[in-house]
Formats: sequence, C-alpha cells, structure tokens
Amino acid sequence: MEPGKSGVRKGSAKAAPRGTPIAKPSRSPPRAAPAAKPARTKLLASADLSHSLGYRIRRAQLWVFKDVSRRLAAFDISPAQFSVLSVIEANPGVNQLTIAQSLSIERAGLGRLVDHLERRGLVQRSASAINRRYYVLYLTNPGVALLGRLRPAIAESEKTLAAKIGPRAFKELQRSLSIFLEDS
Amino acid sequence: MEPGKSGVRKGSAKAAPRGTPIAKPSRSPPRAAPAAKPARTKLLASADLSHSLGYRIRRAQLWVFKDVSRRLAAFDISPAQFSVLSVIEANPGVNQLTIAQSLSIERAGLGRLVDHLERRGLVQRSASAINRRYYVLYLTNPGVALLGRLRPAIAESEKTLAAKIGPRAFKELQRSLSIFLEDS
Repeated sequence: MEPGKSGVRKGSAKAAPRGTPIAKPSRSPPRAAPAAKPARTKLLASADLSHSLGYRIRRAQLWVFKDVSRRLAAFDISPAQFSVLSVIEANPGVNQLTIAQSLSIERAGLGRLVDHLERRGLVQRSASAINRRYYVLYLTNPGVALLGRLRPAIAESEKTLAAKIGPRAFKELQRSLSIFLEDS
Repeated sequence: MEPGKSGVRKGSAKAAPRGTPIAKPSRSPPRAAPAAKPARTKLLASADLSHSLGYRIRRAQLWVFKDVSRRLAAFDISPAQFSVLSVIEANPGVNQLTIAQSLSIERAGLGRLVDHLERRGLVQRSASAINRRYYVLYLTNPGVALLGRLRPAIAESEKTLAAKIGPRAFKELQRSLSIFLEDS
C-alpha cells in the first residue's frame, strides 16, 4: 500500500465534480453547470478498487482506448477496426472466426465490423475454398494504404503512454504483460 | 523488442486452430472438429499488436475481466456491478451521474445496472434532497452483506494474477499503473 496514494480518500463527497450535486447539503449552493467546459472528472474513492491491480489495469486500458480512439477518429477508424485490419494484413486469407477468437471480439459484432470495412473497400471477403461456411479475408490495396497511415497515429499513442508512465515503467510493463499475448 | 517472443510469428497459417480452415491449401486435409473439446485459442500474429503496450494492457484487462467474471458468477454479479456496489458503500449518498463518470460506465447502462441492483434489494435509490433530477444511492443491509461475500472472490483473483505475472511484476505494476487512478 502506498500511503497517500491509494486508499479511501477523505471527504470524497466534496470531491464530486461541479454540477453533480450529492445528497449531503453542500456548502456552496447548486448552480448551473458551465455549458462549454466539461467538468474534470474526479474519481470516487473505493478501497476495493484502488487497491486492486485488476482495477488499475482496467483504468489503464480505458486511458489507452480513449487515446487511441481519439487519434484514429481522424480516419473514421475504431481501435477494434485497426486491430482487425492489422491481423488481416499479417495473416492474409485468415477466417473470420479465428479473428473473433484471437481478438476476443464477439462473433456477430465482428461480422458487422467486417461488413463495414468491406463496404469501405478496405477488406475483401470471400468464401473459403476448403469450407464454404467460412469467410476468408484479405486487405485490398486501399486497406493496406490506410493501415500505413494509421500506424503513425498508433505510434504517437504509444509515445504518449511512455511519457505518462515513464520510459522505465514502459519497458517493465512490456516485459511483465507479454505473458498475456500467449493465450486468451 | 524481445527476439522470439513478440514479432510476427512465421507460418502463422499453420497456427490456426483445428477446425477453422483457412484459404491456403493446407498440408493436412480438413477434418471434423472435435465436438466435445473446444480448441484452445491460439492468438494470431500481428507485429502492430504484439509490439504495442496498449494491446498488452488490453489483453491483460481481458484476462482479469474473464477471471473476475467467472468468480463473481457464483453470486450472479458482474465485475461492473461489483464496482458499483463498492463505490456506493465507500460513498453513501453518491449520485448516479458521478458514479457513471468515475467508473466510465455509459449513463444509460449504469441506470439499467442500478435498476437491477435495486430490484435485488441490494441498493436503495432516492431522489436527491438538493436536486430532484438526481438519484442518490445507498447500500441496503443485504447489499453490504453481499459485498462482504464478494471480497474474498476478488482477493482470490488478485492472488491468481500475482501468481501468473510473479510477485515482483505485481508490485511494479501496482506502482506504475497508480497514475491511472488519478484521472480518467
């Protein structure tokens, strides 16, 4: 435990963002939330959560997801779409079911995602020569070109993450989390 | 980069799980997938993903989510429901909007989640004395009792995680990921 870092914060009621009144009578009367500037979100205290490594991993993942989403939005691509494009490029002719399992994406959701990428002309889908129940996927030339333009955005996100946690922690995390690449 | 660990795996086509044929003619002829034993999921190679710390964090989060889900299923509680119960206990009278922001749960989704907890008699919801547009939340006695029974399950999950990554990496991660508790 790190004193003053984790643990239940005292007076957490006062830490509630402006414009989100709570039950306790507050010293400052409620006022209209400012329309333009969204209030900075303070995290609520909970010892259960703040002491849990699982919860820290979840918070880190949310941060990465938001940062990557924001950078890929310029290309109208989601983090999941980026992952699917990357996996298809590295595994030409891969079938949809294998992608769903590998990326832990629900099968129907992946179907819709691939439909969308196909309509945008980024992915080509055809029935497997071996088993017609399976679709096999390839990137089109525009798909390959787009992926090349997405990579610098992902690299920028990784750099921002490294700056946030520090280069040494970045390397430690790379090493200690590599075990999660091995299986699902 | 760790040679032989990350990076594109050679011959990834051969690494596809049995029973999920791919387009390339395979050396071994396709055969019926075993009905009873589900094939172990091999992860598809992609240098974009396997070199990315963001992706490793995502894989770690999926592992934690699956492990916690499995342990809480015995109580018919999801990881998100556990988080909400913990936050309400630590912040009695907290309003729903603040919880949604703090836990990065979409507002409508949290509404349904709280409805469900209220129907189960675990949470009591009432209109805020200050602003009747807001609901404020408290745990009921059965809610407090259930939370006490969930905590050992969460502790077991944390122990399993520590065993998986090693106690030293567990401590390093606790330290380096604490920054994500500070803001969203």
